[in-house]
Amino acid sequence: MILIANDDGVKAKGLKSLIRVAREFGDVIATVPSEPMSGMSHAITIKTPLRVKKEHEEAGLSIYSCQGTPVDCVKLAMNKLAARKPDLLLSGINHGSNASSGVVYSGTMAAAMEGCINLIPSAGISLLDFSPDADFSASEKVTARIIANMMEPGLPEGVCLNVNIPAVPFNELKGMRICRQTKGCWKEEFVRRVDPHNGEYFWLTGSYLNLEEDAEDTDEYALKMNYVSVVPVRVDLTSQKGITFLKSWDLNTIWEK
Amino acid sequence: MILIANDDGVKAKGLKSLIRVAREFGDVIATVPSEPMSGMSHAITIKTPLRVKKEHEEAGLSIYSCQGTPVDCVKLAMNKLAARKPDLLLSGINHGSNASSGVVYSGTMAAAMEGCINLIPSAGISLLDFSPDADFSASEKVTARIIANMMEPGLPEGVCLNVNIPAVPFNELKGMRICRQTKGCWKEEFVRRVDPHNGEYFWLTGSYLNLEEDAEDTDEYALKMNYVSVVPVRVDLTSQKGITFLKSWDLNTIWEK
Repeated sequence: MILIANDDGVKAKGLKSLIRVAREFGDVIATVPSEPMSGMSHAITIKTPLRVKKEHEEAGLSIYSCQGTPVDCVKLAMNKLAARKPDLLLSGINHGSNASSGVVYSGTMAAAMEGCINLIPSAGISLLDFSPDADFSASEKVTARIIANMMEPGLPEGVCLNVNIPAVPFNELKGMRICRQTKGCWKEEFVRRVDPHNGEYFWLTGSYLNLEEDAEDTDEYALKMNYVSVVPVRVDLTSQKGITFLKSWDLNTIWEK
Repeated sequence: MILIANDDGVKAKGLKSLIRVAREFGDVIATVPSEPMSGMSHAITIKTPLRVKKEHEEAGLSIYSCQGTPVDCVKLAMNKLAARKPDLLLSGINHGSNASSGVVYSGTMAAAMEGCINLIPSAGISLLDFSPDADFSASEKVTARIIANMMEPGLPEGVCLNVNIPAVPFNELKGMRICRQTKGCWKEEFVRRVDPHNGEYFWLTGSYLNLEEDAEDTDEYALKMNYVSVVPVRVDLTSQKGITFLKSWDLNTIWEK
């Protein structure tokens, strides 16, 4: 049984594509936000209760919507809605890129990481096209191959996949490339407005800044060259380099008498 | 200049403690959520505008509140409120643990990671006591030492700190220990309720499950032994092990004619 999540909500075209592909591999249960939830990252809902609605049911497919975040949806599915532990978790297909540091803000990837924390082989799939009517036909072929490999040979424990797909026709894709996450950040601009009662407010906007434009082993570079980027993402955030570095810190003298 | 963030909001006692300690090291600008924002992870606010309020100003200290997430606050501070790039970012002192996989859900640690993505030496500090009137006196001494080391010798680029402090008096702390993130997850229980109009809803609750109880190099183990745990956290989530593994995947045959 395959669990499907997303952050674009129950009406997203990318969800329909992912369900279509996943059903070729097994029974599907989709549990997704009732409304779009982009940028929610790994947020969970603590202060308000969650309501769940069964949107659709037929042989081999159940679709639920939930008034919560993508991670809430995964938790609800694993604990309340699915009859057993899912064999795979797939998140997406997202409308828009989650490459580079985008992985940290992404609700799509948070859902995949939530599966991974709970020891379910998981992947987030994203198409580099934000438009609601984006063309997912190439993405469906790519996704089918990713699913096949996730089932056999499978994924190492603690590692999930961040798959990003250039928005070009299938025969213009150069292939898939295993990459590392590009070092990058957002150059934010807060657009200032004043409301009719003279109150000031700001809109968060910004543009992506690639801090290693020419690094050929990064996901942004692969995408620029029309390759599908596949980044293995770990849920153990420990920096081994950091551990070695910090061993030189003499922190315990504050307890000396 | 030191930038302070948190996820417990402008009224939190832990914020006052962190400001007190940080001021010993330089000028402070605190930009924090107007309301508690636990569990918001790296969420950003896209669909609603942000309002900012100056809460306090004196020589060497400005405090702002913002109706957004912890990461929104850091972005606003870096782009609109601070006169220049902060020398350090400190987040907390959080009321409650952010050890183990908690790092992924934590707004406190997301704020620190946001600083790190933007190449500012950053740390999140948490006390293992959720109560609003928790005793931060030992935490203040620990935090002062962490800040001193963050300034000199500093931190490697791309690495921030997740510091967790047991809720015991200073002289009962055994010291600080450099650790790795414990492998753990939450055993969720969704409490089902029915509203007066016969609508069903769920409350998310759960308890932590340590998946490697006896691993002495983990943060949970250190905390259990009354050590302060210091985990170096990376913002590059790429799994090197995963890259090696995936190189064996033959993904490109789908393009063969």
